[in-house]
Amino acid sequence: MDIHPVDIKSVTIEGLFWAERLRQMQEIVIPYQWELLNDRILEAEKSGAVQNVRIAAGLEKGDFYGPPFQDSDLAKWLEAASYVLASSPDAALEGTVDELIDLIRSAQEEDGYIDTYYIIKDRDMRWTNLRDMHELYVMGHLTEAAVAHYDATGKTTLLEVAQRAADLMIRVFGRGRGKIRGYPGHEEIELALVKLCRATGEKKYLKLAQYFIDERGRQPCYFIKEAKKRGDDPTGPWGSGLPDYWQAHAPVREQRTAEGHAVRAMYLFSAMADIARETGEEELSESCERLWENVVSKRMYIIGGVGSSHDGERFTEDYDLPNESAYAETCAAIGLVFFAHRMLHLKTDARYADVMERALYNNVLSGISLDGKHYFYVNPLASFPGAGKPHARQKWYGCACCPPNLARLMTSLGTYAYSQTAEALFVHLYLGGSVRFDIGDTPVEFKMKTAYPWKEKVTCTLGCKEPVQFKLHLRIPGWCEKPKIELNGEKIKVKKKMLKNGYLVIDRSWKDGDTIMMLLPMPVKCLESHPEVRMNAGRVAIQRGPVIYCIEEEDNGAGLNDILLAKKAKFKIKSGSGVLSGVPVIRAKGYRRSLSGWKKTLYRVAGSPLKPTKITAIPYALWANRTPGELLVWIRAAK
Amino acid sequence: MDIHPVDIKSVTIEGLFWAERLRQMQEIVIPYQWELLNDRILEAEKSGAVQNVRIAAGLEKGDFYGPPFQDSDLAKWLEAASYVLASSPDAALEGTVDELIDLIRSAQEEDGYIDTYYIIKDRDMRWTNLRDMHELYVMGHLTEAAVAHYDATGKTTLLEVAQRAADLMIRVFGRGRGKIRGYPGHEEIELALVKLCRATGEKKYLKLAQYFIDERGRQPCYFIKEAKKRGDDPTGPWGSGLPDYWQAHAPVREQRTAEGHAVRAMYLFSAMADIARETGEEELSESCERLWENVVSKRMYIIGGVGSSHDGERFTEDYDLPNESAYAETCAAIGLVFFAHRMLHLKTDARYADVMERALYNNVLSGISLDGKHYFYVNPLASFPGAGKPHARQKWYGCACCPPNLARLMTSLGTYAYSQTAEALFVHLYLGGSVRFDIGDTPVEFKMKTAYPWKEKVTCTLGCKEPVQFKLHLRIPGWCEKPKIELNGEKIKVKKKMLKNGYLVIDRSWKDGDTIMMLLPMPVKCLESHPEVRMNAGRVAIQRGPVIYCIEEEDNGAGLNDILLAKKAKFKIKSGSGVLSGVPVIRAKGYRRSLSGWKKTLYRVAGSPLKPTKITAIPYALWANRTPGELLVWIRAAK
Repeated sequence: MDIHPVDIKSVTIEGLFWAERLRQMQEIVIPYQWELLNDRILEAEKSGAVQNVRIAAGLEKGDFYGPPFQDSDLAKWLEAASYVLASSPDAALEGTVDELIDLIRSAQEEDGYIDTYYIIKDRDMRWTNLRDMHELYVMGHLTEAAVAHYDATGKTTLLEVAQRAADLMIRVFGRGRGKIRGYPGHEEIELALVKLCRATGEKKYLKLAQYFIDERGRQPCYFIKEAKKRGDDPTGPWGSGLPDYWQAHAPVREQRTAEGHAVRAMYLFSAMADIARETGEEELSESCERLWENVVSKRMYIIGGVGSSHDGERFTEDYDLPNESAYAETCAAIGLVFFAHRMLHLKTDARYADVMERALYNNVLSGISLDGKHYFYVNPLASFPGAGKPHARQKWYGCACCPPNLARLMTSLGTYAYSQTAEALFVHLYLGGSVRFDIGDTPVEFKMKTAYPWKEKVTCTLGCKEPVQFKLHLRIPGWCEKPKIELNGEKIKVKKKMLKNGYLVIDRSWKDGDTIMMLLPMPVKCLESHPEVRMNAGRVAIQRGPVIYCIEEEDNGAGLNDILLAKKAKFKIKSGSGVLSGVPVIRAKGYRRSLSGWKKTLYRVAGSPLKPTKITAIPYALWANRTPGELLVWIRAAK
Repeated sequence: MDIHPVDIKSVTIEGLFWAERLRQMQEIVIPYQWELLNDRILEAEKSGAVQNVRIAAGLEKGDFYGPPFQDSDLAKWLEAASYVLASSPDAALEGTVDELIDLIRSAQEEDGYIDTYYIIKDRDMRWTNLRDMHELYVMGHLTEAAVAHYDATGKTTLLEVAQRAADLMIRVFGRGRGKIRGYPGHEEIELALVKLCRATGEKKYLKLAQYFIDERGRQPCYFIKEAKKRGDDPTGPWGSGLPDYWQAHAPVREQRTAEGHAVRAMYLFSAMADIARETGEEELSESCERLWENVVSKRMYIIGGVGSSHDGERFTEDYDLPNESAYAETCAAIGLVFFAHRMLHLKTDARYADVMERALYNNVLSGISLDGKHYFYVNPLASFPGAGKPHARQKWYGCACCPPNLARLMTSLGTYAYSQTAEALFVHLYLGGSVRFDIGDTPVEFKMKTAYPWKEKVTCTLGCKEPVQFKLHLRIPGWCEKPKIELNGEKIKVKKKMLKNGYLVIDRSWKDGDTIMMLLPMPVKCLESHPEVRMNAGRVAIQRGPVIYCIEEEDNGAGLNDILLAKKAKFKIKSGSGVLSGVPVIRAKGYRRSLSGWKKTLYRVAGSPLKPTKITAIPYALWANRTPGELLVWIRAAK
């Protein structure tokens, strides 16, 4: 079954929830980020990204600015801008994109090399520090942008840049005589090369990706050899002393747990899944599944976040999921979406889509403010600023990986929602809008109307000039126990045999105007964690549909950790107000201790009376959009 | 009322609990630490302390070893050794001490300067970095050792060294022309100078201490001026950017909260209380009381620990008392004992002794292993090593402040237990042994027989050749609700008017053989924290008498945080076994979730069944004396 995401150009997104977010992306975020990348937003941190390319192209004098991987912000922006162009013509944006591509072309070296850090700083030092210097990462992002631009516009201006760079890599890297037998410290080029192969049909790019994947983790470790050659500390700047930070502790087919820097791990696993799909290799596929299981069953926050430690932005150990000090980087959650999306195309199973959805509606969306201009890099699950500075979204970051990464994911959302085969459409995510696709020679339109995830109802309508037989796969979310489905007004009783890997399969000859009404009941649920997640013992997280809720100081006052959710609490849904207008807000009964009667007492014999209190919970992704203050996801629950 | 601690030479300590600890101190710890200070314990971290003095004295060639304050370890050891000599003659030890003093005398500079770091490294740089370089701290400890040595032996060999150093300080520091108008970055000299004044009767030493106290925190800040003069970072190596790290953010009489490095704060506050007592100054006394209240009612762990943050070993903010990441340095708890002891002599109130006792039996004793050879620097209240290294006591530390600090406190314990006035004896702590003192010309012996804090009974016997009238003040511990007292077999009904500031006062003409039997009932209690201590919400700590209990992996299995103490749990006391033989161990009923049924599930709908489990708690101070593993003080309690 050759399942693949639908063409981005065939998707429209309309209606509640996403359309407004995407309009904001197109009208505010993409233009705003362009200003930022050009250093024209004075009150934000300087980027230097465009300036670096101008200097590399010889159009300006100056030194490289920012971290060595600064080019990648520009590439991610280009990728996002291309997705916007794919779905809606925008001459001004297209002009800006073309100009930037021209600039990048003029900065590219004759042999295909394109990384402004080394072009500006020291051409001779190229490829001498694959571990830390991100050249292959930067060129990976440029390649992803090139493929997106080509898909959106049909133009090969940037694709040629990417191909020249990839051809250079083919000459430089590999097992042959005189070649560098290394691989990147930050994975990204691998999955980009798979995309380049798919876009150009050139298998040589897939082969290079395979080489990078196969070589990683072989002993003796390339990074140690490379560091010694440079006269550098072989343990690297991250001090772990182990190459697991770079997923280089073992060959990828032998890795059993997700280790090291979380974004890198997610990009590696994504590429592994891509390659397993392209090659059909069972061993690699099994390794992907094993690593997936380790992540989602032992190392993932309930918000779909991964990488719990600030120190090294990394995975630590099974069940180590601290809340206040959670790192849960926005980019890592985006990486988990990528990994999930690849797994979904390796083995079409709704459990991958469940995790994709969990990450998307919680940790990923938390990364961007409702006004679209402020970003979280770090997403804690509890925050108690006390007398200190509350955790708040920033306009930009010195290391600004997350904002443009959010942009490229959100602007290509349609391709995460739908997949197709020759005889089937898969609906992974429920969002308003439509997708057009062909079954044989028959064009079909599949429309959805929904306010998901705020509302439970999804109405799907088929459009086709003549009846057409195909299998519609509708994902039944893992959180949804009793879905109700009607086809043209008639109830469909969902039986086990109609379900395949978590999808409801309706195989029939579809007629124009056929309508499916889905009701995905979203009762409020309290979830608990595995007993080994010690941080969450005695606590519950509130979930409604795919949305994880939190309590904030704004609604509940300070001292959130002293709040106790009542036993068998009943939950009421109300519509939020202000910036949360239209958002389902959850109310429940709880208790807390009084601060009076304590005077100068710090400790006393237990037994303080509890006084009733009302608990108000809002979606986690929307926290810190009002007065910044305390936050709590895992709430104490009476036993 | 001129209350003062009793003479150390007049106290003996016998019987259960302390006698064995002190025998171990004398026979094992003091000789072992001497070997360590001489770098003769190969498997421990190098000290270099004795070697540094030999190099400074010109007896050896070489460079200074260790942190700049390395001399202080030696001084603290000398102080402890002197206390041992005070209570039991030991010719070998006295010989070692005399030799070391000779060595120190020969290293002292002609003008009185004695700090081997600058003597070895750079004489010209003396006094140029009072903030970081600990010269005054080192000389303070030497002064305390000198007074202890003089008190114990009557010899002035070391006292002369201290006086010469102090006389030099008087010439160097102060407000006069050409003098350095500074004060130390690490307080210690202040309280040492008060001791020197008391030992020598020379008021000039008290005046210098007063100057240091008065000058601290005046604006512009001396440390900033000094750093600028050196061309150094004015914010210092601790990065706070504020002089509160060194308690120099405000004049001491205006400080309202305990700030900065916890040991430094404790030593400062101790000196302030000392000086307030000597001068009778009300304003300084009020400041001491205010700072005391801030510490004990908002910033103290239940184990009597202070300074919650690893970062800067410091105070943070009110109610910020994290358990897993608790710093609670052993030296800071020792410092709290010092502060409490001084407050007790400023205003004789048992609430100071309550805190002194809490720190002593919990955080201080936790600092040393049952074998006397291993030390904790950091004392967490929860520890979950997971796959990592368990928190375990070390043989010695590169920065080895805690081990000899423990030694000097424990070897002088008698002076913390008893105070006297012309007409009264105060008993602050209950421990086996005796104290001899005079009322007028009549010598009196007061004996105690007890296994406190393991047992509830204390039997006191008076010894005097002729009847003698005096007021016996017996502390009724704050934790003790219904003490039972018998005098010569007759019950004394404890009435309010017999209590003065927490002490039961028995004023009578005492006869030889008079016997008081005290029963201090120690029912097991569950304590809760102030609601603003968010870390402890829903949790209780188990306390029996002055002893805080904890649960350990050894007795309860891993996953301590998933244990839930039953509602209204009944507690049973059993005698421990193995190294805990004779220790009251507490048993109670609890619950925990099963690990089975979770398979690959990380999160699921709440409502896991709880299965009954037995909880075994041991005294916190004794944790990590068996197989190292998990630890928990604040246990989840069913509501």
